[in-house]
Amino acid sequence: MDTNIAILGTGAVGNTIGNKLIQLGYAVMMGSRTATNEKAVAWAHGNGTKASNGTFADAAKFGKIIFNCTKGEITLEVFKLAGPENFKDKTVIDISNPLDFSNGLPPSLFKQWSNTNSLGEEIQKLLPEANVIKTLNMVNCEVMVDAHRCGGDATMFICGNNASAKSSVKDLLQRFAWSDIIDLGDISSARAMEMLLPIWLKTWMSTGNGHFAFKIVRTS
Amino acid sequence: MDTNIAILGTGAVGNTIGNKLIQLGYAVMMGSRTATNEKAVAWAHGNGTKASNGTFADAAKFGKIIFNCTKGEITLEVFKLAGPENFKDKTVIDISNPLDFSNGLPPSLFKQWSNTNSLGEEIQKLLPEANVIKTLNMVNCEVMVDAHRCGGDATMFICGNNASAKSSVKDLLQRFAWSDIIDLGDISSARAMEMLLPIWLKTWMSTGNGHFAFKIVRTS
Repeated sequence: MDTNIAILGTGAVGNTIGNKLIQLGYAVMMGSRTATNEKAVAWAHGNGTKASNGTFADAAKFGKIIFNCTKGEITLEVFKLAGPENFKDKTVIDISNPLDFSNGLPPSLFKQWSNTNSLGEEIQKLLPEANVIKTLNMVNCEVMVDAHRCGGDATMFICGNNASAKSSVKDLLQRFAWSDIIDLGDISSARAMEMLLPIWLKTWMSTGNGHFAFKIVRTS
Repeated sequence: MDTNIAILGTGAVGNTIGNKLIQLGYAVMMGSRTATNEKAVAWAHGNGTKASNGTFADAAKFGKIIFNCTKGEITLEVFKLAGPENFKDKTVIDISNPLDFSNGLPPSLFKQWSNTNSLGEEIQKLLPEANVIKTLNMVNCEVMVDAHRCGGDATMFICGNNASAKSSVKDLLQRFAWSDIIDLGDISSARAMEMLLPIWLKTWMSTGNGHFAFKIVRTS
C-alpha cells in the first residue's frame, strides 16, 4: 500500500485502527500533542518499520489520508494544533462524536455541535482545502476495522462533499469488511450520523454488548 | 379483542394504525379537535361497527390504550385538549417526533424537546398517572403495522417507566409482526429514539425508499 496514513489520537480507537492499517500494509504515523507521547511511542515501537509517531502537525504532513480518532471535546483544538495548512488536498476521515459528559452518564451531545450543526461540518469549515469524510463513528473500534465482529451484514454510513475522496474511503471501508455502505450525501449528514450515538449508548447499556452495528433493512 | 383503543390524530399514521387495529378485531375510536372532523368521520364510517370517532377527550376516555399519532409540534397541546385527567392508568403509545420544519428541509429537532429532553418525557410529565411508552416512531406507518414491509427481520425499540404497560405494548408490537424488540429502559430513552429521525430522513432521501427499518446486528 503506497498511501501514507496518519492517525490523530492515541486512545483505543487510534490504536485499533493503526494496528489494522499496519496489518493491511500501510505506512502509518500516529500523531499526538508531543513527539514523545508515551502511548504513541509505544505503539510505533510495537508495530514494525512501517509504524511511526510524531506531533499532530507531523502526522498531518505525513498522511495522504488522516483519521481523526480524538475525543469530540478536543477535536477542533487538535486540528488547530496540527495546522490547517497541512491538510490541503488531504482526505480526513472523521470518526469523532460530540459527546458531552459534563452532566454525567449517559452523555448528551454538545448543543453547539449537534442537531443544526456537527463536528464533521466544523472540521470541514476549519479545513476548507481538505476533503472531510464522516464514517465509522457509530460502531465500536473493533467493529470499525472488522465489520464481521458485529455478527452479521450491517450497514456503514458515509458522507462528505468530495466524490473522489468518498470513493477512496469506501475502498478502505471494504478492506475493513464493510459491504453494505450507504452514502448519505454531503458533510451536513454528519449531523444525522453523530445523532446515532445516543441510541448506540442506550443499546449498549440495555444489551451489555458493544459488538453490534446498525443495519438498514430494506426492500430491494 | 376486548381492549378499547384510541387514536389521537387523523393523518396517515392514525389512519394506518386504526385500520390495522380494526383488522385485528379491536374497537377503535379516532380522536380529533372536533367530533365532526371530516377525516375522522370518514374513517369511522368506512371501518365497520367497531370504528368510531369523537373529540380528543372522547377518545382518551374511550381507550385503555391510546396511540399518539399527532405531529410533534402540536402533541403537547393535543394532550392538554384531551384532558390529562382522562389518562389515569391508561397506556399511551407515543409515536410522535419533535420535527421542526421552520428552517426548511430536512427538518431539525426542536431544541426544547431534544438531546437533553424528548417529547416522550414531556408527555409523561404532563400525564403523571398514565404509562407512556415510546415505540414505532422510527419507521414509516406501513412498516409500523407490518414489520415484514421492510423486507427483513428488523429491530423495534421500546421504552417507558412501567414494566406491565411495556409488556402489553410488546404483545401488540408482535401482532404488528415485530419479533426483535429491544427494551431501552425508562422513558428517558425517548431521547435516543427521537434522535433517530435525522438518519431516517437522510437514508430515505439517499435511497428513495421509505420501506426500511433499523436492525441492531449483534453477536448473540
